[in-house]
Amino acid sequence: MKNFADKLIESIINKKSVSVVGLDPRLEQIPAFLKEEAKKEFGNGFEAAGSAFFEFNKRIIDAVKEQVPVIKPQMAFYEQYGKAGIEAFDKTVKYGQKKGLLVIADAKRNDIGSTAKAYAAAHLGEVELTDGKKSCFDVDALTVNAYLGTDGIKPFTEACKQFEKGIFILVKTSNSSSGDIQDKELKEGGAVFELMAEFVKKWGSDLVGEKGYSSVGAVVGATYPEQAKNLREIMPQSFFLVPGYGAQGGGAKDVLPCFNNDGFGAVVNSSRGIIFAFEKEEFGCKETEFEKASQKAVEKMNNDINTVLKEKGKIPW
Amino acid sequence: MKNFADKLIESIINKKSVSVVGLDPRLEQIPAFLKEEAKKEFGNGFEAAGSAFFEFNKRIIDAVKEQVPVIKPQMAFYEQYGKAGIEAFDKTVKYGQKKGLLVIADAKRNDIGSTAKAYAAAHLGEVELTDGKKSCFDVDALTVNAYLGTDGIKPFTEACKQFEKGIFILVKTSNSSSGDIQDKELKEGGAVFELMAEFVKKWGSDLVGEKGYSSVGAVVGATYPEQAKNLREIMPQSFFLVPGYGAQGGGAKDVLPCFNNDGFGAVVNSSRGIIFAFEKEEFGCKETEFEKASQKAVEKMNNDINTVLKEKGKIPW
Repeated sequence: MKNFADKLIESIINKKSVSVVGLDPRLEQIPAFLKEEAKKEFGNGFEAAGSAFFEFNKRIIDAVKEQVPVIKPQMAFYEQYGKAGIEAFDKTVKYGQKKGLLVIADAKRNDIGSTAKAYAAAHLGEVELTDGKKSCFDVDALTVNAYLGTDGIKPFTEACKQFEKGIFILVKTSNSSSGDIQDKELKEGGAVFELMAEFVKKWGSDLVGEKGYSSVGAVVGATYPEQAKNLREIMPQSFFLVPGYGAQGGGAKDVLPCFNNDGFGAVVNSSRGIIFAFEKEEFGCKETEFEKASQKAVEKMNNDINTVLKEKGKIPW
Repeated sequence: MKNFADKLIESIINKKSVSVVGLDPRLEQIPAFLKEEAKKEFGNGFEAAGSAFFEFNKRIIDAVKEQVPVIKPQMAFYEQYGKAGIEAFDKTVKYGQKKGLLVIADAKRNDIGSTAKAYAAAHLGEVELTDGKKSCFDVDALTVNAYLGTDGIKPFTEACKQFEKGIFILVKTSNSSSGDIQDKELKEGGAVFELMAEFVKKWGSDLVGEKGYSSVGAVVGATYPEQAKNLREIMPQSFFLVPGYGAQGGGAKDVLPCFNNDGFGAVVNSSRGIIFAFEKEEFGCKETEFEKASQKAVEKMNNDINTVLKEKGKIPW
């Protein structure tokens, strides 16, 4: 059975990259000329924000589409602008896929029973119409929060199976207070995040694809390399989605423990560090050349990570 | 400082009810004549679904607006239909508020830092425009998942303070496998859900309003009365949002431990049991009288809960 992980691996080999470009548009950081164009057409409302976001994303996608396997739009930034934001999100997903990129929606959705089923339908599967069914966002993978347990996850894994999609479950997040809940030691042994990892392994065990990886992955922060090492052992067949690289402080060496010896098993996300690279002097780009700056930032990220992987004999292509 | 809990208490007294009507529209259960009307106007697409949802909700709201203090649209069901669904959600929120109801968006949002800030802005606060700021969904309260810890919650509590809003954090959810993570015993004592309750108390401690309740509440399932008793003690100043009543199996006696002795401290949600009450013979309503069935179902729910509260001397009006 071919699954999401097989498609991911194929794309990683094809692009020679394990980098993910996080499309987290913040209106205050969008280049002024794009905002002016949007404002001229749509005024000073939500439509202008949505239009500026999509135009921004489109140019970033065009710039990086040969360099990375995956883009990851963060839904919160789109949801802020109501239906105009959701339209920008949807158009970004479709445009990215048309350009040959896999799309992970970072939405951290979670609920139970028929409600979780509705989220799975919205993002991964098909939704009910008066007559028949139709896909909605149709992303390739979705981030999910599993605090609610097994019956909150089942609708998502069922959609993964039926539609060749993937999920990444929050295990050990990159933020400084992720330990508040996640690091607490359990009486039965191990910490909460390790228990979560055991569940990820279990939930993904019958969704393993041709290349040996499950379509149920885990979110593991680049900021916690020690924990990542341990998690790599608990979930050998899960891909890790690794946030916290770059702006949040994680470096190329920090992400190394997230990879298996075959060089697969992780994709590393950078958002601000890539899409707002024009703000950094090192790339020597003006605001109007923001795409070029992103391209240079991705090139640097690919080089940095691939160099470290190579040193350890973990280059998989 | 007047806060969300003060507004909630005022509305509970005013309506003599602690019931919440969950607006969880499922297209397959929406009365056929409403779907036909929507289809005639919008065809067989997402717009038709969104239109049918709003028309359905509007009539339910008109029917129950004098009987309950709060409605709770579940975002997943709207998100399924992309921007058309989001528009129906938004219109439902505004319509409910215009009719004097408080609105809790059940979205279980969660993230960290600037992303959590974006969710808080989208639902509770104001979002950035090219010039100035504007509110988006502007609901009265939002459900939140706190697996990510303190820095995932801070942006929401800040918005609560600034905009007189509330949040309900998932503590012990109503589903049968909620124990997978939540019930695990910690080395330091107590279970994961009790640790979460301690955090809810802490996060809400400086957001207590005039009536002694915090704007940081907790989600505690009606299906776990034993745990609720304990949680009531850990979080004396938090309102509980109690799902699991009716369709999920919780009864009036089961929700009793969620209330404080002053008769406040909890609101109880029923979704399917109310909005699809026309499907039940006991209310003797045709599909075309679905609003009337909802009204009767709310009346029954109010009576059932108020009777039990009264028996225990917990009627607060």
